Amino acid sequence: MVEWIALDGDDTLWHSQDGFEEVEALFREIVAEYVDPDTARAELYATEAANMSALGYGAKAFTISLVETALRLSRGSIPATELDRLLDAGKGLLTRPTRLLDGAAGAVEELAGRYRLLLVTKGDLVHQERKVAESGLAEHLDRIAIVSEKDHDTYRQLLAEEGAPAQRFLMAGNSLRSDVLPVLEVGAWAAYVPYAWTWVHEQVPDGAPDGVPVLSSLAELPGLVAELAAA
Amino acid sequence: MVEWIALDGDDTLWHSQDGFEEVEALFREIVAEYVDPDTARAELYATEAANMSALGYGAKAFTISLVETALRLSRGSIPATELDRLLDAGKGLLTRPTRLLDGAAGAVEELAGRYRLLLVTKGDLVHQERKVAESGLAEHLDRIAIVSEKDHDTYRQLLAEEGAPAQRFLMAGNSLRSDVLPVLEVGAWAAYVPYAWTWVHEQVPDGAPDGVPVLSSLAELPGLVAELAAA
Repeated sequence: MVEWIALDGDDTLWHSQDGFEEVEALFREIVAEYVDPDTARAELYATEAANMSALGYGAKAFTISLVETALRLSRGSIPATELDRLLDAGKGLLTRPTRLLDGAAGAVEELAGRYRLLLVTKGDLVHQERKVAESGLAEHLDRIAIVSEKDHDTYRQLLAEEGAPAQRFLMAGNSLRSDVLPVLEVGAWAAYVPYAWTWVHEQVPDGAPDGVPVLSSLAELPGLVAELAAA
Repeated sequence: MVEWIALDGDDTLWHSQDGFEEVEALFREIVAEYVDPDTARAELYATEAANMSALGYGAKAFTISLVETALRLSRGSIPATELDRLLDAGKGLLTRPTRLLDGAAGAVEELAGRYRLLLVTKGDLVHQERKVAESGLAEHLDRIAIVSEKDHDTYRQLLAEEGAPAQRFLMAGNSLRSDVLPVLEVGAWAAYVPYAWTWVHEQVPDGAPDGVPVLSSLAELPGLVAELAAA
């Protein structure tokens, strides 16, 4: 019997990765005179990975990595106007309007009040708060947890703070790495709701583990939870 | 009778602004061939202020503003090597070792266990968590609140979550704007512990309001709290 339902934000409740993909496409276009698209993509991700422990996740870290990689790939010859375009595009991610995914609002409304409903999301504090506010979903959420990393320690601590037994806690999200695998590790339930794009860092080679429900939209979540209750 | 004591992090428990001042000095040196130092400083702060609602506070926002301002002040003619120096210096703030202020550790140890002790800090989530971990103070803190803004709403919500009556809550910090004025607004106690530098954004024209205790170091905080108890 699930009593706690936790939801991821980016690419689960609202679109996010599509914006990063657009900016990355601009980046590849801008550095096209120095490197081919595959190299551009790989080098950008190498910079992001190298910056991650200090900069964490989110659009500000991404913006810094864009500029840094463009300077490196161009050996410093990139025109300032192109750097300005990258800065503007990166910063633009932070003020992009929040667009909910199909089925997200309905699922949240249906689950609210019947379960303790949590949002568990990582990234920039200011940016995530803005998206929560713009989403219109805040009134339905019992708790908003903006965290720096979503690993098993994060979920273990969250369960402890909530006084939630693992077998009564379900997390739904689009990232196997952040929303599914560490949740299974602590003995809780997870539902996988794939998004069209997955950031390289969130990709998991083997796909969803056996037995993890894969939903085509959050609209299927209330039904899944009802099934778990009946089982 | 104070039962809750909240402490600011940056420039109250550990040094922070000195690092930003160093990087700003490097910035002024780098743009010196385009503008005079006062203009450099004013333009950097204008960029930071314009970026604040989207980017928030902290070293990542500062790094983006450094690059953006240097491009603008040089009309795009700044060499890439200088942009690299700015990126490195800005990112370096995020991995700079955490150095406690004199008196901070002793005060925290003395207060821990006798009061409910909170850290209330704003900035980058990842960076603040790193500083808390490096500070060695986490074991003495009952709660760590990393927030996007420290205004009266933030303190009101914190008091509500803690179930703390305002008159039993005291906040100590180096910023009149973030640690003192909004705390007084909600009817709680505040102690002002000035730091050597105050970021322009945190400066308040009139100085500390009458009656607000001004401490020369956190070492004086346990004595102040004892006085409040006796009064």
